Amino acid sequence: MMDRRDSAPGKFASLLARIQLPDDSIRAATQDVLDRKTKPRRSLGKLEDLACRISAIRGTTQPGMLSPTMVLAAGDHGIAEEGVSAYPQEVTGQMLLNFASGGAAICVLAREAGARLVVVDAGTVAPIEHPAIRDCRVGPGTRNSTKGPAMSREEAVRAVEHGVTIAAELAGEGAGIIGLGDMGIASTASASALCAALLPAEPADVCGHGTGVNEEGLARKVDAVGRAVRANAVDGGDGLEALAGVGGFEIGLLAGVALGCAANRVPVLVDGFITGAAALVAARIAPVAADYMIASHLSQEPGHRLVLDDLVLDPLLQLDMRLGEGTGAALAMPLVRASLAILADMATFDDAGVTDTGA
Amino acid sequence: MMDRRDSAPGKFASLLARIQLPDDSIRAATQDVLDRKTKPRRSLGKLEDLACRISAIRGTTQPGMLSPTMVLAAGDHGIAEEGVSAYPQEVTGQMLLNFASGGAAICVLAREAGARLVVVDAGTVAPIEHPAIRDCRVGPGTRNSTKGPAMSREEAVRAVEHGVTIAAELAGEGAGIIGLGDMGIASTASASALCAALLPAEPADVCGHGTGVNEEGLARKVDAVGRAVRANAVDGGDGLEALAGVGGFEIGLLAGVALGCAANRVPVLVDGFITGAAALVAARIAPVAADYMIASHLSQEPGHRLVLDDLVLDPLLQLDMRLGEGTGAALAMPLVRASLAILADMATFDDAGVTDTGA
Repeated sequence: MMDRRDSAPGKFASLLARIQLPDDSIRAATQDVLDRKTKPRRSLGKLEDLACRISAIRGTTQPGMLSPTMVLAAGDHGIAEEGVSAYPQEVTGQMLLNFASGGAAICVLAREAGARLVVVDAGTVAPIEHPAIRDCRVGPGTRNSTKGPAMSREEAVRAVEHGVTIAAELAGEGAGIIGLGDMGIASTASASALCAALLPAEPADVCGHGTGVNEEGLARKVDAVGRAVRANAVDGGDGLEALAGVGGFEIGLLAGVALGCAANRVPVLVDGFITGAAALVAARIAPVAADYMIASHLSQEPGHRLVLDDLVLDPLLQLDMRLGEGTGAALAMPLVRASLAILADMATFDDAGVTDTGA
Repeated sequence: MMDRRDSAPGKFASLLARIQLPDDSIRAATQDVLDRKTKPRRSLGKLEDLACRISAIRGTTQPGMLSPTMVLAAGDHGIAEEGVSAYPQEVTGQMLLNFASGGAAICVLAREAGARLVVVDAGTVAPIEHPAIRDCRVGPGTRNSTKGPAMSREEAVRAVEHGVTIAAELAGEGAGIIGLGDMGIASTASASALCAALLPAEPADVCGHGTGVNEEGLARKVDAVGRAVRANAVDGGDGLEALAGVGGFEIGLLAGVALGCAANRVPVLVDGFITGAAALVAARIAPVAADYMIASHLSQEPGHRLVLDDLVLDPLLQLDMRLGEGTGAALAMPLVRASLAILADMATFDDAGVTDTGA
């Protein structure tokens, strides 16, 4: 990947300077530790890779068990007025309340994973006051990107900054791994437009059925995404410009969380297509940030695979899911825990008196 | 699948009569429950399928959170003297002690999954007395199947009966889901021979590197497996005959656990290739038993995919693992829990006041 740090906006210069490559010598040293455990070498496959990557990110062969947090950001999308979703826009706010009161899928799965859930309003149409919702509103939903920029460059910076602040705060409070979650009616249209601009890719290759739009709706979505990309003439290399042109507030905020995690050596569990688009924005702002990302699952949205390929990430799960909210990230957390427990707790050949043939 | 109940041995007649098809109407009713939850329909993909299957197995749309147990059976294999493994035979007993003292990979992963671990000696070369090892020894390892039957038909029945008894006992003690785990030097050779006989398949198509045998060792393994199958002229339809001819004590015991689970409406988490071969033996004895099985993962052994295809099972995980011990089953337990938590705890559209468009 090309290093674009020099072209990064001054606003983020000090943050970006703090994002260093994970420590490859720690990765190798962690594999050595695993190779002394009572099992044929590499026989735990991707679980071992995971432990090694996380160790390299944390900078220690003894990362311990990382305390997990989910950051779930919601935002509304002006492009919804193009008829690209199977649900009306009011559902974003309704779901935000559902997140706050613990009834949504991500609430259940975060509890199961033992993860703290931080619910953030990045900019829904109607403000909701609730003690369990953090107010990071950049505006009352984005504008319709088929008619001009979804947000100003200043708003894009503000969205990202909110995420950076949240990540730093959580890292300071002891979060050891952070999962990304998203909600927002029409958000797959914005994510598709970001992918079309940033990969780049044809709209038809990155648009899917989202939450369940029919074939007619999908055709409208492909058309709207194409118009949004053309209306904003986005440069594929500029993450902030693409975010401002065709993105969403919650996507910008989650990109900021990813950047903040990288700056604080916290691994980030990317969820599905929307958080994948956020990860892509983050990686265009700071390519090294991708080294701090773990792909939790491969969703059913066709653009998701293209995003993960671009980020050189291999998804842990493939369960035909397409819900978002961070549900895939929460499901992958026990795998992360398992990999760390293997590293911390398994006996070595010497400990256990088991014959080691080096196989 | 052909119903082979009529040809099943009289010994198991009363057990087999208790194995009924899971309740398809419960499966459909569970999907209806899930369709009222605040998410687009089917958007949790295989997680929803899992909840529906388990409900059908348990016979209720409210299965609750099932208490998980791992049954880990070890046995030695006479075919080891053909030089088919990267490890010496003494390692089976050494690992049994490692399981009993909590240092092995499965011990760590079972703890992480909150699962009870039941360690069973089904017949290792040297008996080990340890309070944490259950003695179900059928003999001091099997005989070399390239030279005649690995065990007598009576020994095969005894191995299976041990497993049936264990499953019934655990179900009686409240186990709601049981994972299968295995250990035994040269066990992949026996499992390959079982697959070659029962699928049927060519030895070269079902033999892999096991715990890490080199190319020369693999060639010896393919040759030995071929000789074992020819020496025992096994009928592809007869699970017990194949088990006696080319199987292993722990494989027979685990087949019995699978049958006992089906008789007690307990879902069974199949692990990798060895437990897959045990599942195949069980399904040849009672085809309906396969409906009680959940494939936890796809291992790196080439025969595993063929076994799962035969059983019409779709693996939940694919992590390039090849350790056995039940490690894949333990890793899948959080996914099972997650599916049941979604069913039990998520809010409905009505509960949460979220607009339902039926998408």
